[in-house]
Amino acid sequence: MENDIENSLSRKLLSTASQLDPKRRRFRRCKSAPMADYLPSEIKPRNGASQAAPPPSQYLWDKIHPSIKKVGIYLFLYLTIGTTCFYFVGNQIKGDKIDGILDSVYFCIVTMTTVGYGDLVPNTAATKLLACAFVFSGMALVGLTLSKGADYLVEKQEMLLIKAMHMREKLGPAEILEEIETNKVRYKCLMTFSFLVVLITVGTVFLVLVEKLEFVDAFYCVCSTVTTLGYGDKSFSTKYGRVFAIVWILTSTVCLAQLLCYIAEFNTEKKQKELIEYVLTRKMTNVDLESADLDDDGSVGAAEFVIYKLKEMGKINQEDISVLMDEFENLDVDQSGTLSLCDVTLAQSVRTKK
Amino acid sequence: MENDIENSLSRKLLSTASQLDPKRRRFRRCKSAPMADYLPSEIKPRNGASQAAPPPSQYLWDKIHPSIKKVGIYLFLYLTIGTTCFYFVGNQIKGDKIDGILDSVYFCIVTMTTVGYGDLVPNTAATKLLACAFVFSGMALVGLTLSKGADYLVEKQEMLLIKAMHMREKLGPAEILEEIETNKVRYKCLMTFSFLVVLITVGTVFLVLVEKLEFVDAFYCVCSTVTTLGYGDKSFSTKYGRVFAIVWILTSTVCLAQLLCYIAEFNTEKKQKELIEYVLTRKMTNVDLESADLDDDGSVGAAEFVIYKLKEMGKINQEDISVLMDEFENLDVDQSGTLSLCDVTLAQSVRTKK
Repeated sequence: MENDIENSLSRKLLSTASQLDPKRRRFRRCKSAPMADYLPSEIKPRNGASQAAPPPSQYLWDKIHPSIKKVGIYLFLYLTIGTTCFYFVGNQIKGDKIDGILDSVYFCIVTMTTVGYGDLVPNTAATKLLACAFVFSGMALVGLTLSKGADYLVEKQEMLLIKAMHMREKLGPAEILEEIETNKVRYKCLMTFSFLVVLITVGTVFLVLVEKLEFVDAFYCVCSTVTTLGYGDKSFSTKYGRVFAIVWILTSTVCLAQLLCYIAEFNTEKKQKELIEYVLTRKMTNVDLESADLDDDGSVGAAEFVIYKLKEMGKINQEDISVLMDEFENLDVDQSGTLSLCDVTLAQSVRTKK
Repeated sequence: MENDIENSLSRKLLSTASQLDPKRRRFRRCKSAPMADYLPSEIKPRNGASQAAPPPSQYLWDKIHPSIKKVGIYLFLYLTIGTTCFYFVGNQIKGDKIDGILDSVYFCIVTMTTVGYGDLVPNTAATKLLACAFVFSGMALVGLTLSKGADYLVEKQEMLLIKAMHMREKLGPAEILEEIETNKVRYKCLMTFSFLVVLITVGTVFLVLVEKLEFVDAFYCVCSTVTTLGYGDKSFSTKYGRVFAIVWILTSTVCLAQLLCYIAEFNTEKKQKELIEYVLTRKMTNVDLESADLDDDGSVGAAEFVIYKLKEMGKINQEDISVLMDEFENLDVDQSGTLSLCDVTLAQSVRTKK
């Protein structure tokens, strides 16, 4: 659990870092410490302990592992239960049957991805209700779990892609992090789009070669499948076709859905940039200065200004500030208005006593 | 455009305000000004000008209008072009035909929502490619535009719902805002779920009464449609059935998709709360204090502490801070390290001269 939160924390620190226009203002070394220093101590070893750090690939694997594992387990459970159910009611399903177990898995995949060709359909009240239950749970599984797993996979690939692209320039970890931060969503869109093109090509070629469809029909069937349209006039009707379909349908439908998500993310980012632009160019007035004065000392310091503008940008809200101000007051044991190491030590001993 | 950004700004200020657990710490009046004061002057009239403010319903309508209008226009264009195209190639579409124009609209809707019953299918290479083009563009339209419009509609309903629920308590605008902030996603989930249940019930009853299906078949067809599965063994085959289907399919598929989005949002929020919990309970160390000292004056003030913790929570990143620190330095013309009205006036006159 602890580990889970740490993973999500470090991912969060990376993933929220992509919301500003890289072209308007370049990242510059400002007075505050660089990004890497802000990773909590549990994730990034302190300078002294850097010898004990695992190699980057190990670190990456540890970061991605839990969610992929989770998706895998859910998918396996769903397919096992689904296949078993539909195998035992196989005689209540009508359509182009080939092989008991293969048809059950194929029917499961076609149902959970909502492709629904209709080449195999339930024929009794019980199987119809069973199919209803499986399509809702399958849709939720694909929508909520699989796309999350896919997101991690894309992020992992992205890291490798950027490393490969900048091999000659020999970027350090900080530069790679920065490159990912500024162009994250663009890389994701590109990657997913390329992968989708490959999947569509492979699917079309397969349908022409194995299912002996004409080229237009093959392409039509592929489009009808990846979009989960599934008219069903063309579908996978051979044994090898269905084996291929099981893997290919799942991958390609998730891929297109993921691409749409990324495009939406890209649009949101653009909107956010407009908002930031607006906040940055808006004139400060007397009233703004009063509102920005967080500690009521009559002047607005740099940090207070940053908080005020962040709030205007919609990145943070009053509740965030209130909670942290409370925490600050708790920590500021000597009521000096600033935190020192003494405060921190005192606050912790008080907390331990409670 | 200006207006658009302002709208999106005020929405942002509302919508990002839902990320903290209301049960752990109640909103309290802290030293900083309350939320309402932070709305930029262009949106919320200053005290003196409050007489000129439009009534709340007018204000809400203005806020929602542009996106709904946009969705409406896109949808109308898509359906007009789609219907025209498919009407003229009607003889190249095979299946259960009833009426030229009605079938074209119905085919358009069944295709764009990716339901794809297969009761009407393209029969020539040209129409197949046309269908491919329409399913991709329709999917993008539904996914990217319609769900956004739906989101605004839900938000509007939410406001009315909360007002109605707390009628007796006579909540002021600030309390309503707070209630929306703390339970936003929960209200959205509830609302969309209720609406989906109504749509499923209406659809089932309609299929039983008009299409003369048995109850199980009607429910099966409804489930197969809202999930966009569309096996196609049961579909809308009468004239009135297809008229109903045109509206009902679009509404119900968008509704279910929207519900899944909200559930995902709810999960993300839960994760974020865990992260915030972790950051709040983590001990501050000497190194943390050093990193948090934004202006390098050797002490960590309240505002600096807030920024440091916000960054740990992943709500903001180094880039956000850098850009705003730059802006602060630009504004701080007299280099005093604090902003006063004098600085602001000076900075603006300098900027105007440029």
